[in-house]
Amino acid sequence: MLFERRRFLEVGAAGLAGMALFPRSQQQGRRPAFRLTTSEAFDAAALPAYRGNHSRVYRYIDQNLDRHIASLQRWIRQPSVSAQGVGIEEMARLVLEDFRSLGFKEAELVPTGGHPGVWGYYDAGAPKTLMVYMMYDVQPVEPEDWRSPPFEANLVETELGTVLMGRGATNQKGPERAFLNAVEAILATEGRLPVNLMITAEGEEEISSPHYPEIVDRYEERLRRCAGAFFPFNSQGPDGEAELDLGVKGILYLELESKGGPHGGPTRAEIHGSYKALVDSPVWRLVQALGSMVTPDGNTILIPGYYDAVRPPTEEEQRLINGVLRKWNEAALKRLLGVERFIDGWTGADALLAYLYHPTLNIDGIWGGYTGEGSKTILPHKATAKIDSRLPPDMRPEQALSMIRSHLERQGFGDIEIRQLGAYPPSQTSVEAPLVRAAISVFNKYGHPPAVWPRLAGSAPFYQFTERLRLPLVFSGLGHGSGAHAPNEYMVIHPRPGSKIAGLAEVEKAYVDLLYALAAA
Amino acid sequence: MLFERRRFLEVGAAGLAGMALFPRSQQQGRRPAFRLTTSEAFDAAALPAYRGNHSRVYRYIDQNLDRHIASLQRWIRQPSVSAQGVGIEEMARLVLEDFRSLGFKEAELVPTGGHPGVWGYYDAGAPKTLMVYMMYDVQPVEPEDWRSPPFEANLVETELGTVLMGRGATNQKGPERAFLNAVEAILATEGRLPVNLMITAEGEEEISSPHYPEIVDRYEERLRRCAGAFFPFNSQGPDGEAELDLGVKGILYLELESKGGPHGGPTRAEIHGSYKALVDSPVWRLVQALGSMVTPDGNTILIPGYYDAVRPPTEEEQRLINGVLRKWNEAALKRLLGVERFIDGWTGADALLAYLYHPTLNIDGIWGGYTGEGSKTILPHKATAKIDSRLPPDMRPEQALSMIRSHLERQGFGDIEIRQLGAYPPSQTSVEAPLVRAAISVFNKYGHPPAVWPRLAGSAPFYQFTERLRLPLVFSGLGHGSGAHAPNEYMVIHPRPGSKIAGLAEVEKAYVDLLYALAAA
Repeated sequence: MLFERRRFLEVGAAGLAGMALFPRSQQQGRRPAFRLTTSEAFDAAALPAYRGNHSRVYRYIDQNLDRHIASLQRWIRQPSVSAQGVGIEEMARLVLEDFRSLGFKEAELVPTGGHPGVWGYYDAGAPKTLMVYMMYDVQPVEPEDWRSPPFEANLVETELGTVLMGRGATNQKGPERAFLNAVEAILATEGRLPVNLMITAEGEEEISSPHYPEIVDRYEERLRRCAGAFFPFNSQGPDGEAELDLGVKGILYLELESKGGPHGGPTRAEIHGSYKALVDSPVWRLVQALGSMVTPDGNTILIPGYYDAVRPPTEEEQRLINGVLRKWNEAALKRLLGVERFIDGWTGADALLAYLYHPTLNIDGIWGGYTGEGSKTILPHKATAKIDSRLPPDMRPEQALSMIRSHLERQGFGDIEIRQLGAYPPSQTSVEAPLVRAAISVFNKYGHPPAVWPRLAGSAPFYQFTERLRLPLVFSGLGHGSGAHAPNEYMVIHPRPGSKIAGLAEVEKAYVDLLYALAAA
Repeated sequence: MLFERRRFLEVGAAGLAGMALFPRSQQQGRRPAFRLTTSEAFDAAALPAYRGNHSRVYRYIDQNLDRHIASLQRWIRQPSVSAQGVGIEEMARLVLEDFRSLGFKEAELVPTGGHPGVWGYYDAGAPKTLMVYMMYDVQPVEPEDWRSPPFEANLVETELGTVLMGRGATNQKGPERAFLNAVEAILATEGRLPVNLMITAEGEEEISSPHYPEIVDRYEERLRRCAGAFFPFNSQGPDGEAELDLGVKGILYLELESKGGPHGGPTRAEIHGSYKALVDSPVWRLVQALGSMVTPDGNTILIPGYYDAVRPPTEEEQRLINGVLRKWNEAALKRLLGVERFIDGWTGADALLAYLYHPTLNIDGIWGGYTGEGSKTILPHKATAKIDSRLPPDMRPEQALSMIRSHLERQGFGDIEIRQLGAYPPSQTSVEAPLVRAAISVFNKYGHPPAVWPRLAGSAPFYQFTERLRLPLVFSGLGHGSGAHAPNEYMVIHPRPGSKIAGLAEVEKAYVDLLYALAAA
C-alpha cells in the first residue's frame, strides 16, 4: 500500500516561492485551491550535524558486510505476498527468530484477524525507548517481467552500481534488515543499545493494514511511553539526494461490484450479447456509476462535499513547501514516471500543492466479461472495479466512504455493492519533534541534508503512531532503492564510484548514529 | 458470433397485435419508435405440409443411428476454438475428409488471410443446386464450468432426455454433421441426391467471419446460380416449439484501448496509485469515453445519428411480428436468461420491437490494472474494452464505426485507439422465397409449424448470401440444443418420452425431406 519514493528533487532546479494558485481548479470551482501566505523556506542544512563517532561499531559493520548482505537476501528470498497469502507464516517466523537471535527480551507472534504480527522488545535499561515499525509482507509479482527472479535476491550490476534485486529489496525488507544489522553491530561491539527498542512488525501493509491496530492493542500502554516511532527507509534518490517525509495521506480502498438483479441485467451468468436490445447491462452500470464520480477528464471528483474537509497548509507546512520548491525538478519526476505531462499541464507550486493537498479517486483495476483474445459476444452478469482514494488532512476515510455511498445512491446506483478493502486516515508529524531533529542531524553528518516534505501522497497506517499513540513518526534512512510496486525492485548495496548514494555499510552506520543521536537528544 | 436460440415462444401465451408504441423511447426522443399499421398476422400452419415419403432413406437412418451419433461426436471431440487458434487446421481437414468420403466431386481447403475455408461440391446432375453454409469453429470454453468436459462429447441424461454435451453440440457441429448424415443416407439408399450441393465451410464464424468473403470470392459465379443458401440449425425450443428466422442483425465488434501519451497518463508501465494527484488516468479516460456513448442507464445510444438509418418494419415484417406476438412468452424468456425485468420494464410489442429494431451498444469485456485478489495501488497505463453493436436494417457497420469515431473525437477522446475485430451488415430473406416455403412445409409435415421471425437479434455474415449473392437464406431444421456461448452446450439426441423435441433420427429425416421439397418446389 505504501508509496514509491518519488525522486523529483535535484539541487539547482528552479524553485518557486511565495504565492501559488490553482487557476484551473478555481475555474472548475471544485478542487481545493490554497495560496501560500509566507515566503519563508525551511532549510535542513541550517540545522547542526550529528557529531558522534562510533568507530568500533563502524569497523564491525565493514568487517561483516558480506554476512549482512546475506541477511538481507535471506529475508527477500522468503516470499511473503500478503495479497495472495503466499509465504506469510514462514516470513513471520523468520522475523521472530531474528529478534530472538539478537537477544530480544520479548519476541512473539501476535495473532490477529488476518496475517500474524511479530513483537520484539529489547531492554537496554536505557531511559528512552524507540518504537520501530516494520512490515514483513511484499507486493505481488509478475515474474516474467523481471530481469532477475524476484525471490532470488541476486546481486546485479547496474548503472548505479551493484544492487540487490528482488521483491522487498527496498519496500521494505532491505532497509529493515539493514536496521537490524546496525543493532547487531552495536550489541557485538558495545554490548548494549543506547535506547530500548519496541518493534511491531505486520504482514498486511501491502493490503492496507486491516489488522495492524490489533497488534498495537496488545502493547498500547507501553508503546505510548516511547520517545517516538521509527520506520527504516531508503530516503535517497538515484542522484543521492535525500528526502524526509513528515506524513502520509490516508487511504480508502474499495471494490465496487455491479451485478444483475431486480433492477435488471442477467442474474445467473453471462448471456448472449444480442440480448442487449432487451436486457440491462451490469457492465454499463459500473461504467456509468464510476463515470458519475469524476469529471470527463477523470481529474475532479464530483462527489458532493468530497473536498470540504481538506485543510489549508499550516505555517510550518508552507515553510516546508517553500523549501521543497527550491529543489523541485519536475522534469526528472516525469522521466521517472514515464509521463509526458501532469494534469492540466501543472508545473511548480501548482503541481506540488496538488500532489500534497488533493484528494484522489483512482481506478486501480477494472474487469468484467470476456478479456481474452479475439471476440466473444456476451452480456456479462457482473463487473468489478478496485478504486482508491488518497486523503490529505483532515479527511477521514469513514466520511469519504459515506459520501461515495450517498452519491451512488443519489445517482440511482444504490444496487452497486461496495466492499471496503482498506482504510486509514492521514498522518502528520512536526518538523520540531526531537526524533525528526535527530534524523536530520544524521543526514547532515553524512553530507545529505534532506528536502523535508510535509507528507507523501502515498499512504501508510501511520495514524496508529501519530494519532492513536501520539508519537512523532520518522520514516527515513540513508540508502536508495526503487521499483517498490513494480518489476525489478532493487536496493543499492555498492554504489558506483563517485555516486552520492550511500552503500549498505554507510546505511547501517547511519542507523547506528540515529539510535545514539536520539539517546542524546 | 452467431446467436443463441432464444426460446420465448409458447403456444397459448397472450398475444398482442395492432398498434404498438414505445412511449418511454419517445420521451427520451432517441431510440427508434415504430408503430404497426396492420393487424394481419402470418400463420405458418396455414401453409401446406410436405407430402413426400422417403421410407427407405428413413429406415437407413434408423438402422445407422449409433454410427451417425458417433459422427457428431467425432466433430465435437476435435476442438476448433477460432478465437484462440486451437485445433483449427485439424478440424478443417476433418471436414474436408468427410466431404471426400461422401463422394463430393470437389473437396478442397480454401486458403484465406485467416483460418482456412473448406469447399465441397456434390454434383447430382440435378437442375437445382443448394448452397450450404457451414462453420467449423466454436466458442472458447471455461472447462471447469462444465458438468461434462466440453471436448468429450458425452451422452448425458437430462430432464429433456439423452443429450450430446460438448462445445459445438448445437452451435453448429451437431446440426451440420446431422445434415451430412442425411446426405449420406440418401446416397446409400437412392444413389443420388435430388439437388446438387455447394458447401462453403469457414473456421472464423465465432470471431466475426473476417475472411469468409474470400471463400465466396473463389466460387462466386457458381454460387450465384444456386436456388438458395441453407444453414443446418436446431430450430426447436426446449418445449419443442419451432422457430424460423428470416434474417439477422449486422454487427460491429471493436476493441477500444486507452493509453498514456502526449495527452497525459503513464506511457511505459503502471505507476504508484498516489500519483493520481498529478497524473491523468488512462482507465478513467476509457470509462468516461465509454460513458459518453450511452445514457446513464446504459440503454440509449447518445452517438449522434446512430439511430437514423434504422428503417421501419415492412408490411411483410409487420404480419410476421403480429404472428410472433400471438405465441410470445416473455416470462419463459426471462427465466431462460435469468433476468428479472427487461429494460424499462418493457413487455409485449414494446419488447419485441426493441429486440428486432433497436441497434445495441454492448460491453462484452473490459479490463485494466490489477484484477487479482486483495488490493494493489496502481495507476495503470492502459485499459481496454471489447464492445459490440448490433445493427438492424438498414444500418451499415462502416457508418456505425465512423459515427463512433467522430463521437469520441468530438468528446475529446480522439487518442483512444479503435481496433475493428469484426463487422458485417444485417441480412434479410422474404417469407415468400421458395426455399423458405419448402422449409415451412417440412416443419408442418412433422407437426411443428414454426413461428416465423423477421430476424434474430444475433448476427451472422448472411449478407454474403442475401446481399452479395442475392440468394434467399434459410437457417433451420428440427432439433433442439442450447448453451451456444455458455457452459454445458448440448443437442438433444433421444428426447424423453412425450417430448415434442425431434430426436437425431427425425432431425436427419427432415433434412432429407427438405432436399426433396426444394427439388420439387
